[in-house]
Amino acid sequence: MAITVVGSVALDTVETPFGKIEKGLGGSGSHFSASASFYSPINLVGVVGSDFDQAHLDFFKSRKINLDGLEIVEGGKSFHWVGKYDFDLNTAHTLETHLNVFETFSPKLPESYRNSDVLFLANIHPALQNHVIDEAGKPGLIALDTMNLWIDTTKEELLKVIKRVDLVTINEAEARSLTGNPNLVQASRAIQELGPKTVVIKRGEYGALMFHEDKIFNAPALPLESIFDPTGAGDSFAGGMLGYIAKRNDYTFDTLKTAVICGSVMASFNVEKFSCDRLKELTKEEISARFAEFQSLGSFEGIQF
Amino acid sequence: MAITVVGSVALDTVETPFGKIEKGLGGSGSHFSASASFYSPINLVGVVGSDFDQAHLDFFKSRKINLDGLEIVEGGKSFHWVGKYDFDLNTAHTLETHLNVFETFSPKLPESYRNSDVLFLANIHPALQNHVIDEAGKPGLIALDTMNLWIDTTKEELLKVIKRVDLVTINEAEARSLTGNPNLVQASRAIQELGPKTVVIKRGEYGALMFHEDKIFNAPALPLESIFDPTGAGDSFAGGMLGYIAKRNDYTFDTLKTAVICGSVMASFNVEKFSCDRLKELTKEEISARFAEFQSLGSFEGIQF
Repeated sequence: MAITVVGSVALDTVETPFGKIEKGLGGSGSHFSASASFYSPINLVGVVGSDFDQAHLDFFKSRKINLDGLEIVEGGKSFHWVGKYDFDLNTAHTLETHLNVFETFSPKLPESYRNSDVLFLANIHPALQNHVIDEAGKPGLIALDTMNLWIDTTKEELLKVIKRVDLVTINEAEARSLTGNPNLVQASRAIQELGPKTVVIKRGEYGALMFHEDKIFNAPALPLESIFDPTGAGDSFAGGMLGYIAKRNDYTFDTLKTAVICGSVMASFNVEKFSCDRLKELTKEEISARFAEFQSLGSFEGIQF
Repeated sequence: MAITVVGSVALDTVETPFGKIEKGLGGSGSHFSASASFYSPINLVGVVGSDFDQAHLDFFKSRKINLDGLEIVEGGKSFHWVGKYDFDLNTAHTLETHLNVFETFSPKLPESYRNSDVLFLANIHPALQNHVIDEAGKPGLIALDTMNLWIDTTKEELLKVIKRVDLVTINEAEARSLTGNPNLVQASRAIQELGPKTVVIKRGEYGALMFHEDKIFNAPALPLESIFDPTGAGDSFAGGMLGYIAKRNDYTFDTLKTAVICGSVMASFNVEKFSCDRLKELTKEEISARFAEFQSLGSFEGIQF
């Protein structure tokens, strides 16, 4: 079943202690789509300039990502982010942000994208997220990601859109900031009370916690000996998770739990190389093998007491 | 099979946002013993003054903890710690430390304690830990806990004792500090290379990671709506873990994994009340029920890909 995703499609110039990449494929919409495409058909909504590399478009096409909703502004320049990570790979330091064509982005959903099974609102301005829901018809499931910028600057608009969605993915610190509650369980319950049935808390190297109705699921992160570039980890996580939900086309707790692991699997691949480079060469066999690693990582026998 | 534990037995005066306790039963040896006693017979080595409450001694006896090695210094005063937690319950603020009889503590192992199956060196000066190993005969398994104080002040002595033990429990930040390596996998491998087959990284509200030989196990923490008093969580964790290992009397990866969950179970109870109060009223039925909660918290179905 198909997913429509609205998010940024960008060029990322990133430096880590391990190397540097100039204008690699970046943006929340890109990482999400590349990841989710291993599970389900993807309809991408976004905007780029005419400077956008054909190779990036060819990659999307090779993953059978529908680009009918990707606007290419003739003569415009693509969103370009320049960032750096120190040895503490948890924090991105933004050096330059050139919004370019993204500054006036007004998402337009092609008729063929309407009523898709899953709608994912990647991390963009909450007003745009609200607008997309207005345009989207009746998706089976609406999910949303957000960030501290919107919590700090446009909280009212963000709360409005959160009320309209089924699932929220959010960082630990952002969940606390959004609700003003330092206790993560209470913070997640408070977000659920706004409307979403499901809240997925992203905890970086500690994995993820999912609150679904009155139930909780803990997903570990794979302990990694080296992380090459964390950019896009959260979006590839959401991609794997929603990709699997769309593939199974059900919203039971069992499917959601496996979906969160699929998200963790995809994030663990994403950080192994710059940009979407690792996803470009990824195979289903590798995904299955890593899924098995996650199974053994947290499995244990019963107590003999 | 019996565990001999050497650690502090103290009186704790603790204030949290939820209340205050005056001279409750505290110390690493106390929390460890109370927790481990649900699984195995315990031989406690420590020192208190004659001011030590009979009620605390009676509690140890009610848990069948052998006190032959608990020295009571006539006219001496017991180790007394005064601490406070703010709403950020992750950090203890020490207000007063009165070492008293603990300042000149020289652990003596009664003959009956020698050659016990498991020896646990709770968080005390590494020179004392080394001395205890000299005295302990041939335990089947030696485990050690430590803290940043010893890493910062007596690192050489600490490295000496680490070389002599089979299992180390250590906080995440302490593992990084001890090895000078920010990557947790590499830091744990570096500790293993010193000698211990097994390194258990304590991550507080994020659970624990166990490195055993070349294998890794991730244990979740139970997401708690409220934590009453975190004092002794690490020691009750070690108590549950080593208690279960001693009970099963084997050192296979399967037993170790279940043991880490038993540790997490005991820590989750420990933080529900002040001091060892929750362990005083705990039943095996409650332990089994919470173990089952941990099982469901992290269990998921296979991928259908």
